[in-house]
Amino acid sequence: MFDSILKNVHEKTPLVHCITNYVTVNDVANILLACGGSPIMADDERDAVEITGICNALVINIGTLNERTIATMLKTGKRANELSHPVVLDPVGAGASKLRTDTTFKLLEEVRFSVIRGNISEIKTVSRGSGTTKGVDADVSDAVTDENLDETISFAKDLSLRTGAVIAITGAIDIVADSNKVYVIRNGHPMMSKVSGTGCMLAAVIAAYCAANPDNHLDATAAAVSAFGLCGELAYDRLVRNDGGTSSYRTYLIDAMSKLDAETLKGGAKIESR
Amino acid sequence: MFDSILKNVHEKTPLVHCITNYVTVNDVANILLACGGSPIMADDERDAVEITGICNALVINIGTLNERTIATMLKTGKRANELSHPVVLDPVGAGASKLRTDTTFKLLEEVRFSVIRGNISEIKTVSRGSGTTKGVDADVSDAVTDENLDETISFAKDLSLRTGAVIAITGAIDIVADSNKVYVIRNGHPMMSKVSGTGCMLAAVIAAYCAANPDNHLDATAAAVSAFGLCGELAYDRLVRNDGGTSSYRTYLIDAMSKLDAETLKGGAKIESR
Amino acid sequence: MFDSILKNVHEKTPLVHCITNYVTVNDVANILLACGGSPIMADDERDAVEITGICNALVINIGTLNERTIATMLKTGKRANELSHPVVLDPVGAGASKLRTDTTFKLLEEVRFSVIRGNISEIKTVSRGSGTTKGVDADVSDAVTDENLDETISFAKDLSLRTGAVIAITGAIDIVADSNKVYVIRNGHPMMSKVSGTGCMLAAVIAAYCAANPDNHLDATAAAVSAFGLCGELAYDRLVRNDGGTSSYRTYLIDAMSKLDAETLKGGAKIESR
Repeated sequence: MFDSILKNVHEKTPLVHCITNYVTVNDVANILLACGGSPIMADDERDAVEITGICNALVINIGTLNERTIATMLKTGKRANELSHPVVLDPVGAGASKLRTDTTFKLLEEVRFSVIRGNISEIKTVSRGSGTTKGVDADVSDAVTDENLDETISFAKDLSLRTGAVIAITGAIDIVADSNKVYVIRNGHPMMSKVSGTGCMLAAVIAAYCAANPDNHLDATAAAVSAFGLCGELAYDRLVRNDGGTSSYRTYLIDAMSKLDAETLKGGAKIESR
Repeated sequence: MFDSILKNVHEKTPLVHCITNYVTVNDVANILLACGGSPIMADDERDAVEITGICNALVINIGTLNERTIATMLKTGKRANELSHPVVLDPVGAGASKLRTDTTFKLLEEVRFSVIRGNISEIKTVSRGSGTTKGVDADVSDAVTDENLDETISFAKDLSLRTGAVIAITGAIDIVADSNKVYVIRNGHPMMSKVSGTGCMLAAVIAAYCAANPDNHLDATAAAVSAFGLCGELAYDRLVRNDGGTSSYRTYLIDAMSKLDAETLKGGAKIESR
Repeated sequence: MFDSILKNVHEKTPLVHCITNYVTVNDVANILLACGGSPIMADDERDAVEITGICNALVINIGTLNERTIATMLKTGKRANELSHPVVLDPVGAGASKLRTDTTFKLLEEVRFSVIRGNISEIKTVSRGSGTTKGVDADVSDAVTDENLDETISFAKDLSLRTGAVIAITGAIDIVADSNKVYVIRNGHPMMSKVSGTGCMLAAVIAAYCAANPDNHLDATAAAVSAFGLCGELAYDRLVRNDGGTSSYRTYLIDAMSKLDAETLKGGAKIESR
């Protein structure tokens, strides 16, 4: 089924509006092109609200937020809701500062999100206003393991019920859940944490997949998470052959996404549903 | 002749001031270094007006404009005009939002541009306030083909006459025109559209070429367009040998520009003048 | 000794807060991960002052400053001082505009810096309010050579005495000085000047090295400068084997940092102390 989700992205070339941080924005633009979508960035309120109207999805990433862009996020998110576009939230560093946490809550109050993607610490902050985020990485004490997997799944389902959003918790083990169903995904490679912006890139790919598969955001999100992780594995195989480091790995990751076809995704996906 | 244009860039190392979007700004900086120029970015009004004074050319790219940077674009553009520096406009996404279209018109009213570079949809917006821009890509219905080439050439010449700027319409077939003379350029590769920012990079290369060849902006622009397209071809040849994807392609494109010499450009340029 | 400095970085994974320009910010983030640190970027005052509290070091880079970020730099720098975090200043383009020069002086007045890193023209501006900066590159007339080395060393020691900061002057020959002791470092490769942001990246690496080696900022800075230069040499060796250009070189530079171990640094460092 996931192969048809990927085919839909390639056929429809969804245009994804990103209000995102300036650290990883270029990689976000290029992974969108690589996955079969098309990016547009606009963060001035007068520009963004209108731009979102010509797009098929919106990503709100709070990585380097400021007063001007927070206002834009709120107005543009509401506009995307009016248009029934999928809206993905990436609460980068939620829990690490009051501004990031408050902005996350404000966004959750005023905008309906289709998907919320974060590491476990960020998602705990989204859920409880607690979570101990260490900068933009998950805290080790929060890590999802086989030992706490059932508990984390219940947590994700409950958060989905409360927010109405598909919850994507990404890390060594990825969890994608709505209130009824959960996918546990074991694609990916530890090297991905050595590249800045893999989370930001994934959030944008999720938006493209949801835009091209409007009837099933849960499966679209799971397919995107699995596809991105699989690209991380393929990139690592190539890295080993070429004796490269972390920057080559970033290149290979985007390369892999640009060459990923339905057959490869079908064969490489490590997904179980619960 | 184009080989001497390239040699002038390498000898003079023009310093190019870029007020450009934060999505592709790093690639713009690196392609400027690669082509033999040198970049400097400044977008605070108090900084930019003075910085432009120590530079040899200015690029104004409206990709992620906001209130603060629009004011800077206007003041800095006027200052560059006073200094007789070449000024290149890249009206990214003009036609896609009122703010982008209005800003484009405001810039055209207050600043004299040496060159305006865009895809056909953006250039139609510049000309007529119409054009159907699909985000930051040209609309398929606008595409320049052999069938509408004569018509598009007339359109470009007319727009050059009205604006005083060299008009560079880039796509599968590139057109570089002033009011008297036109170059039709068939360098390039479709893969270039799978990398974010190739248009932004080209606009900066054009600025470097014009700065180093002040007596002939038409030929300098045509040489830059041909050189950049040729690098796209060379990058593709290398990509095929290395089995890479879109991110490797971006690397190879900038690599090719950094290694391009006059001999290769002379041999690879696919230009006819009309 | 420098090998234990590197080991400390790998063991402690220092979290480095960067208020830096949007041109090279992604490379700064990725070189921090590559060198064994971890990056976080925040430039909104309400966010940054708090974020710096969870970090281990701060980098202030004035590359694309504006009114909003200047205020953030001042407040965040003071907060980092209160917390006794190492603070690194990269005065990009100081001397090229009044705003950059004035901001540099304002920062020096209000914030105590652990390290100031710049090219010779920028450091002369820091010292004398003179210096003839050509954009963001050093002026050729300022270049550090074997002929003026003794004089430059005296200058650096004197500036360190006056500012209390370790002074890192980087170029073909690098000088790292406090008021008592100087390291002259001859690692590096001319190709590094063909990649945008090598200075910005180095400043961030210095911050990570100082954070992990709080007792000796002079040696930590010298080790970082030597390590980064050595990576430039290793990257060039690889470039020659692969027939690449400037963009491959950037990739190989970050790759080399991600693979650098204590043994390689010990063997490759070209440092003399005076």
